[in-house]
Amino acid sequence: MCVVVAYDGSDFAGYQVQPGARTVQAVLEAAAQVLTGHPVRVRGAGRTDAGVHALGQVVAFDSARDISTRGFLLGLNSNLPRDVRIQEVTRVAAGYDPRHDSLAKTYRYLVQLGERQNPLLRQRAWQLGKHATLDFVAMRAAATRLVGTHDFRAFRSADDARENNVRTMYSIDLMEQYTGDPTLFAIEVRGTAFMKNMVRIMVGTLVDIGRGRLALDDVPGMLGAEANRDLTGFTAPAHGLTMVNVELGRKARMLELGMPVR
Amino acid sequence: MCVVVAYDGSDFAGYQVQPGARTVQAVLEAAAQVLTGHPVRVRGAGRTDAGVHALGQVVAFDSARDISTRGFLLGLNSNLPRDVRIQEVTRVAAGYDPRHDSLAKTYRYLVQLGERQNPLLRQRAWQLGKHATLDFVAMRAAATRLVGTHDFRAFRSADDARENNVRTMYSIDLMEQYTGDPTLFAIEVRGTAFMKNMVRIMVGTLVDIGRGRLALDDVPGMLGAEANRDLTGFTAPAHGLTMVNVELGRKARMLELGMPVR
Repeated sequence: MCVVVAYDGSDFAGYQVQPGARTVQAVLEAAAQVLTGHPVRVRGAGRTDAGVHALGQVVAFDSARDISTRGFLLGLNSNLPRDVRIQEVTRVAAGYDPRHDSLAKTYRYLVQLGERQNPLLRQRAWQLGKHATLDFVAMRAAATRLVGTHDFRAFRSADDARENNVRTMYSIDLMEQYTGDPTLFAIEVRGTAFMKNMVRIMVGTLVDIGRGRLALDDVPGMLGAEANRDLTGFTAPAHGLTMVNVELGRKARMLELGMPVR
Repeated sequence: MCVVVAYDGSDFAGYQVQPGARTVQAVLEAAAQVLTGHPVRVRGAGRTDAGVHALGQVVAFDSARDISTRGFLLGLNSNLPRDVRIQEVTRVAAGYDPRHDSLAKTYRYLVQLGERQNPLLRQRAWQLGKHATLDFVAMRAAATRLVGTHDFRAFRSADDARENNVRTMYSIDLMEQYTGDPTLFAIEVRGTAFMKNMVRIMVGTLVDIGRGRLALDDVPGMLGAEANRDLTGFTAPAHGLTMVNVELGRKARMLELGMPVR
């Protein structure tokens, strides 16, 4: 089964199972086990850190039990805590892994400027306090330079030591007046895949450019295999980030058409 | 001082002080006392129930301390918990009471329909579950009949036994696709003043009409001095409601112009 799941990340220690911690994966596996009567391992399209939210995380799991997609939707939701809600269930081949079938992911980051902070957004937006304005022209120009295929090693957490740091960013959009509220803006990033803290370091770097702590001319030096984490900006706080959407690829579409998938 | 204050009502037992309970009024009075060094009693424009939020509640208090409006804004916020945030501070005459100077208040109520519930809205919207559609035509027609000056005794909580139940509703708007999300709508009510649970009973009644539990033709019988609480609908849950705005009147405008106020 392939499941689209939304969660409020505030009370989770992140997506991935960790001993002794409340994680989204553990909560999903427990609910699926209650429903199916057998142990379940869920495979997620991506990990999210503690505090990060999701509207369209995708997970898959296998079950031989004869339960309809609607039965899974209702049954999982009735066994899940209220901060995790299943949005959609589709049938996929056993062993299907959304991480390997993900073509692109979209993340949205909310920032509120100024002293009129909305307390209803305190776990949803990075509230920058006294900074009432940022240089959006410089931030947009910087965002444009980050779009494309680059070695993004300077935009990964220091404790993420993977080999391949090349990723493609399809778009990085600054959405001013995201809700009509002039103090609230969003940064939406769509890319092939993301390393640990990558969106949060991108957002922190753009905000640092917007408030003059970093210069637009610093951006080219942040990209490539020679760059490092010291050159990029602040890691924006987790609670402003939401995984909005995962675009699944060929395998999912073949299954939708009833075609056999290796 | 006259203060516009926003709060997340989730962790409050309501606005008004109650012994042994965490209330917005108590938290504001404690912060003002720390800042001014003397006991402070705040006067609110309206009470909100446990779980009800505010973006534009108005409170006033007196202090002879020589603190600027900006000093109050920053000083109160630094002494308040993060679920209460001062939005704006203006200077008013001692004894000013926003409840007596309130010309109109606006409340907004959020409802999410269907099984794709957004967990990030679980403390902001009434999530109606399997009801995926409502009869908005009937709901709008009913809302239109509630607008105007009526005896609204059937729309007050049974434990609210006041004498005068006549209120004027200036507008009751159903806002479909409130955020672009087709499952989310808002009901915005603007009126002179509200009795206990009044907006929540209006919303519950409109939703009961939308789902066919009550009929449009029942509405006229809900109004007037002969009506009672048995005729109106469900009390919609508190957490969907937000006090959006209080419109202050003549006294505030005279003060703004530097004119003397009795």
